[in-house]
Amino acid sequence: MERIDELQRGGYRLIQDPDKFCFGTDAVLLADFAKARRGERVIDLCSGSGVVPLLMLARYPGARYTALEIQPDIAAMARRSMALNQVQERVQVITGDLRSLPPQLRPHSFHVVTVNPPYMPVDGRRRSANQAVQIARSEVCCTLTDVVRAAAALLTDKGRLYMVHRPQRLVDIFEAMLACRIEPKRLQWVHPYADKEPTQVLIEGVLGGGRELRVTPPLITYEAPGVYTKPMLEVYGQDGHHSDMS
Amino acid sequence: MERIDELQRGGYRLIQDPDKFCFGTDAVLLADFAKARRGERVIDLCSGSGVVPLLMLARYPGARYTALEIQPDIAAMARRSMALNQVQERVQVITGDLRSLPPQLRPHSFHVVTVNPPYMPVDGRRRSANQAVQIARSEVCCTLTDVVRAAAALLTDKGRLYMVHRPQRLVDIFEAMLACRIEPKRLQWVHPYADKEPTQVLIEGVLGGGRELRVTPPLITYEAPGVYTKPMLEVYGQDGHHSDMS
Repeated sequence: MERIDELQRGGYRLIQDPDKFCFGTDAVLLADFAKARRGERVIDLCSGSGVVPLLMLARYPGARYTALEIQPDIAAMARRSMALNQVQERVQVITGDLRSLPPQLRPHSFHVVTVNPPYMPVDGRRRSANQAVQIARSEVCCTLTDVVRAAAALLTDKGRLYMVHRPQRLVDIFEAMLACRIEPKRLQWVHPYADKEPTQVLIEGVLGGGRELRVTPPLITYEAPGVYTKPMLEVYGQDGHHSDMS
Repeated sequence: MERIDELQRGGYRLIQDPDKFCFGTDAVLLADFAKARRGERVIDLCSGSGVVPLLMLARYPGARYTALEIQPDIAAMARRSMALNQVQERVQVITGDLRSLPPQLRPHSFHVVTVNPPYMPVDGRRRSANQAVQIARSEVCCTLTDVVRAAAALLTDKGRLYMVHRPQRLVDIFEAMLACRIEPKRLQWVHPYADKEPTQVLIEGVLGGGRELRVTPPLITYEAPGVYTKPMLEVYGQDGHHSDMS
């Protein structure tokens, strides 16, 4: 059953269906990590409910957004969210498969690609029974290589790819990016606590960029169980203002 | 002029020449990060004064060590350090160039390779006037690719490469390792403070290993200016016992 959530950002609301997939911390981290300048064209792949473009629109209202989603019912829901917020002119939702990009997505026409892709390789084990959840979490409909290849096809020269993923996939990510001439430029690790292993990695790559990697200070999520750190509260925009963490 | 330093580990002492190159935190971090089992053959490339094998010998006395150093005078000094500590039977110092390995280093005969390679690519800028320092710091005598290629030639199947390097070289490192079938398995970032960018990265790779990267919690060096954190004191072995940080 659908519900409407307040995003706490720009007054926007989002329609979600908890039986299918609800956005999590990853989407919020990605929308915070990614940057867009006025006039830039931004496309979010594997967009789901469209939460990433909505969060980014609140922060970078001068950019134009496109959301690509393969599941028609989820894409329709995202389209209804944009209408609900009266931003359907600024966030276009397209139903389509990134493995064979729809013709209205012209090659090399986007300055920015954001993506919170499915994390788990398909290996036959531990599959969710729910098909929508399965598509969102496992590489059923697209592999990491498919995602990065689509990004490279869509990005302008020197365009930026922003991705959130699992730390253990970093080698796959670098390999896929380098194969598509997307140079890793910035890494941020996200740790639940300062003395724990990271649970997410945020990556910025530049199509045709020169070699120059910057690793930022780690983002620590919790100060104590259930208590976010100050930087994490800023990511969530809950301290009244959003400060740039980069 | 040469001097003799106490290593604070196993009672060992090290001959160094401050006019040439003295070991720094990197060597200590590497010796802490690397592991060796009883009976394993360990080779340290770009070994300089031989500090890494000496530190490892103190911790893993059951392994056998080889140090490869290209500069004859530095290699001779390392040899004198081993004699001074009466460990010349356990740490063999070889003068040689890793780009054309000496015949006594048989291919695929080492279980472990450690290396603290020169960090800076040669780009014509900012060269040290001192040749010994230049060779230790810049890729004058060997590039990252040369180092990784030598490691791959020396390692047994499933043998481990342990390297310390600068964070901004991570893409080069992964690329070089993957080209030589050395799979990155473990990453540790070293930050001076929890909210600062990392200054070093420690990498473990396995020749012919499967894909499975683990990123450990970051190692924070300082609590306050001049005051090491507890984990860093353990790396330096200054709390009386050494605890495994992995």
